[in-house]
Amino acid sequence: MARPTPLSGFPEWLPDGRLVEQHVLDTLRRTFELHGFAGIETRAVEPLDQLLRKGETSKEVYVLRRLQEDADADADAQDPGRRLGLHFDLTVPFARYVLENAGHLAFPFRRYQIQKVWRGERPQDGRFREFVQADIDVVGAGALPYHYEVELPLVMADALAALRPIGMPAVRILVNNRKVAEGFYRGLGLTDVDAVLRSIDKLDKVGPEVVAELLAAEAGATGAQAEACLALAEVRGDDAGVVDRVRALAAEHGATTDLLEEGLAELGALVAAAAERAPGVVVADLRIARGLDYYTGSVYETVLVGHEELGSICSGGRYDTLASDGATTYPGVGLSIGVSRLVSRLLGAGLVRATRSVPSAVLVAVTSEDRRGRSDAVAAALRARGVPVEVAPSAAKFGKQIRHADRRGIPYVWFVGEDGAEGQSAADQVKDIRSGEQVPADAGTWTPPAEDLWPRVVPSRRADGPVGPSAERPTALA
Amino acid sequence: MARPTPLSGFPEWLPDGRLVEQHVLDTLRRTFELHGFAGIETRAVEPLDQLLRKGETSKEVYVLRRLQEDADADADAQDPGRRLGLHFDLTVPFARYVLENAGHLAFPFRRYQIQKVWRGERPQDGRFREFVQADIDVVGAGALPYHYEVELPLVMADALAALRPIGMPAVRILVNNRKVAEGFYRGLGLTDVDAVLRSIDKLDKVGPEVVAELLAAEAGATGAQAEACLALAEVRGDDAGVVDRVRALAAEHGATTDLLEEGLAELGALVAAAAERAPGVVVADLRIARGLDYYTGSVYETVLVGHEELGSICSGGRYDTLASDGATTYPGVGLSIGVSRLVSRLLGAGLVRATRSVPSAVLVAVTSEDRRGRSDAVAAALRARGVPVEVAPSAAKFGKQIRHADRRGIPYVWFVGEDGAEGQSAADQVKDIRSGEQVPADAGTWTPPAEDLWPRVVPSRRADGPVGPSAERPTALA
Repeated sequence: MARPTPLSGFPEWLPDGRLVEQHVLDTLRRTFELHGFAGIETRAVEPLDQLLRKGETSKEVYVLRRLQEDADADADAQDPGRRLGLHFDLTVPFARYVLENAGHLAFPFRRYQIQKVWRGERPQDGRFREFVQADIDVVGAGALPYHYEVELPLVMADALAALRPIGMPAVRILVNNRKVAEGFYRGLGLTDVDAVLRSIDKLDKVGPEVVAELLAAEAGATGAQAEACLALAEVRGDDAGVVDRVRALAAEHGATTDLLEEGLAELGALVAAAAERAPGVVVADLRIARGLDYYTGSVYETVLVGHEELGSICSGGRYDTLASDGATTYPGVGLSIGVSRLVSRLLGAGLVRATRSVPSAVLVAVTSEDRRGRSDAVAAALRARGVPVEVAPSAAKFGKQIRHADRRGIPYVWFVGEDGAEGQSAADQVKDIRSGEQVPADAGTWTPPAEDLWPRVVPSRRADGPVGPSAERPTALA
Repeated sequence: MARPTPLSGFPEWLPDGRLVEQHVLDTLRRTFELHGFAGIETRAVEPLDQLLRKGETSKEVYVLRRLQEDADADADAQDPGRRLGLHFDLTVPFARYVLENAGHLAFPFRRYQIQKVWRGERPQDGRFREFVQADIDVVGAGALPYHYEVELPLVMADALAALRPIGMPAVRILVNNRKVAEGFYRGLGLTDVDAVLRSIDKLDKVGPEVVAELLAAEAGATGAQAEACLALAEVRGDDAGVVDRVRALAAEHGATTDLLEEGLAELGALVAAAAERAPGVVVADLRIARGLDYYTGSVYETVLVGHEELGSICSGGRYDTLASDGATTYPGVGLSIGVSRLVSRLLGAGLVRATRSVPSAVLVAVTSEDRRGRSDAVAAALRARGVPVEVAPSAAKFGKQIRHADRRGIPYVWFVGEDGAEGQSAADQVKDIRSGEQVPADAGTWTPPAEDLWPRVVPSRRADGPVGPSAERPTALA
């Protein structure tokens, strides 16, 4: 077999990169659990008709076929209700899981879900065909109070803040509200709300003049209506002033409606709570239009400060109908972190690194193959007290065994005491191969310093700011 | 959308079942890391020609196609080097990863890998189309000493022993060695070793008389040769006596060869080490023939005691050529735990349960929606000290809020002190809803007892044996 080459769009990490990804996943999981979210995992596949239910062919679904299935002979294989595809997000499977298990779940149901998803799109920087998402959602049976739309982005703010000590940049969570946009546009007299949103969504790309033309052509807007829509899109801020500015703009254009006022009350509550609980993180940005065509209330996007061109690393919003079985409607609100996009930037930009590439804190040297059992016994004694350890692969010269540890970043090498002439054994010794210091040690009591016990994930560039030992966290399960 | 029904062969768990699975995964991961294995994750797909390289069509590979790909117009779609399939195990992807990254890995390379795999087989009890495997392997560049064939099953014995406290039955790891079998058969004069192995593999199903006929028909064995093969298959034991019995049998039938002696030395070393480090767990069983056609040394299968009909939950062996790039050959030895099979039995047989279905130890009650911010602040203070907590969904009557906690198994409900008439607040109170005991509490200092902090995974049936509190482990990241 010739040396294989990577598949574009299917990222994989070397062991030290995987340590960084695993640390990110552990940190997210722990934060979600501290906030009372229960973890679930769904199968990777869904019936194709469910995946395509909302016309999601733009997601480029991967369809499965068993190799030995005779497609021509099997009419079922062409039936979208029988064909299976890989899920392209965790929302469609979660909605299905809720309907399937509604009788066994207690609502409002808080769940997190961390899994791979697949999209057959053209790979680009930060856009993969296989990637990991970390989602949280709260779903209600029949009703879901607005306060969850305040809570969920703050959970994500907490989760992302927990990654700052390893060298992740600050984040900014941009929020908007469907009711504000729709209430304002309808107040102006524009009834094709989705057409307005599609035009506004192009603002960053084509600029205000072209958007004004689009608003006229696509949504039938007059010059004054287009001007008002563009003025709304300029409103941005992290305090109650945002609500005042929108309200004044609506009054100026005679665009005040009950729906607008409802939306502003919600947006104001979110901004106020965020100012207290995650100052500077949440920003109301009325230009955000992506997702407002399917979300029914709040909508969220998140940028890494200094890496805005990467696109959103955490998005979501409120659905009045996440799922429905006819008898009951299940509204939900949730956000999804693009873990692979985030980790690939952390690694690719050299922001974060692992202190070593293997779990072992100690390599137990082997004096001779006959005495390997003694080295194994030392390793077992250390592991029993929670010290990760491996035994040298061969009874090579000690210099070679030390190089074996050094190449992996293993900080300590353990030497088992030699048998003496009169049946007495010399004491074991342990060497810190960084300093060269070697001291007598007992496998029943010796423990490495806490910072050496497990590989840690730390900022790569000390120049990014002051980083003390408290900023470093162990990467393995404690 | 009508209520969906489960897909046969694609298991999913309710949140309390997922807690059990997550605990199993965390425990395996921790054990693997204590033994110095580095975690990696590979993409879910491999080129179809790689998946089919060893004629593995029996594994019923799932082939992928992008929905919008025009299969007829695209000749590439028919080229097995361009088509992608879902991996059916973690060995093929690991071999590819080693070749692709050989320049960046230090050998011998110890890795663990815990991921889903897919096989389009007919679903049965314990046999799924999508399931999780947990693999460990050591791979060398050019050479790999035998002692790893002793070490790896003992790592798995350690990992599976770490699950005993939650109620998992004991395991028995059955081992055999290709060199023993092949050396013995060749010593007898039987040259079609694979035909002998295929016949012996049917022993449990069809019995010795039919196998004797098969050996004659398929491998050209005489009556005496068949008798010797069947006698070898009867040898079983967990001490050095096994080696003596095989050696005596070979002498009796004139079947002694250098290859047999080499295999017996290996098998003897494994049994001796196991007797010391995991007494009673590892059993040499010369009847094991599955896998001996592709493994080149040791081979392992593992049964759950009392659940033998479930089949092996942890299998593997030694490959002299796990991978090769022409210049270098990479031998390896590894084992794979069928996590889904194991967890589905633990849950299905009611052996194991989680103490609650949500992470939260505390529900903070809400007195009125106006005062939700105070409940949020209490929750934040508790979380900052590592207590998992959620806030009540609505300011319902306290009785209803307590029932909300009770339904989820949340043990504590927190009541925020009311403002007094003169601007003084009464102290907060926390109620253990199991005992009804309610005491004053401060969110800056109160902590629940350790056994209530996180959901725990515990044996379901106390009747299975004496189980003390020390047998119960937290299920979340500490």
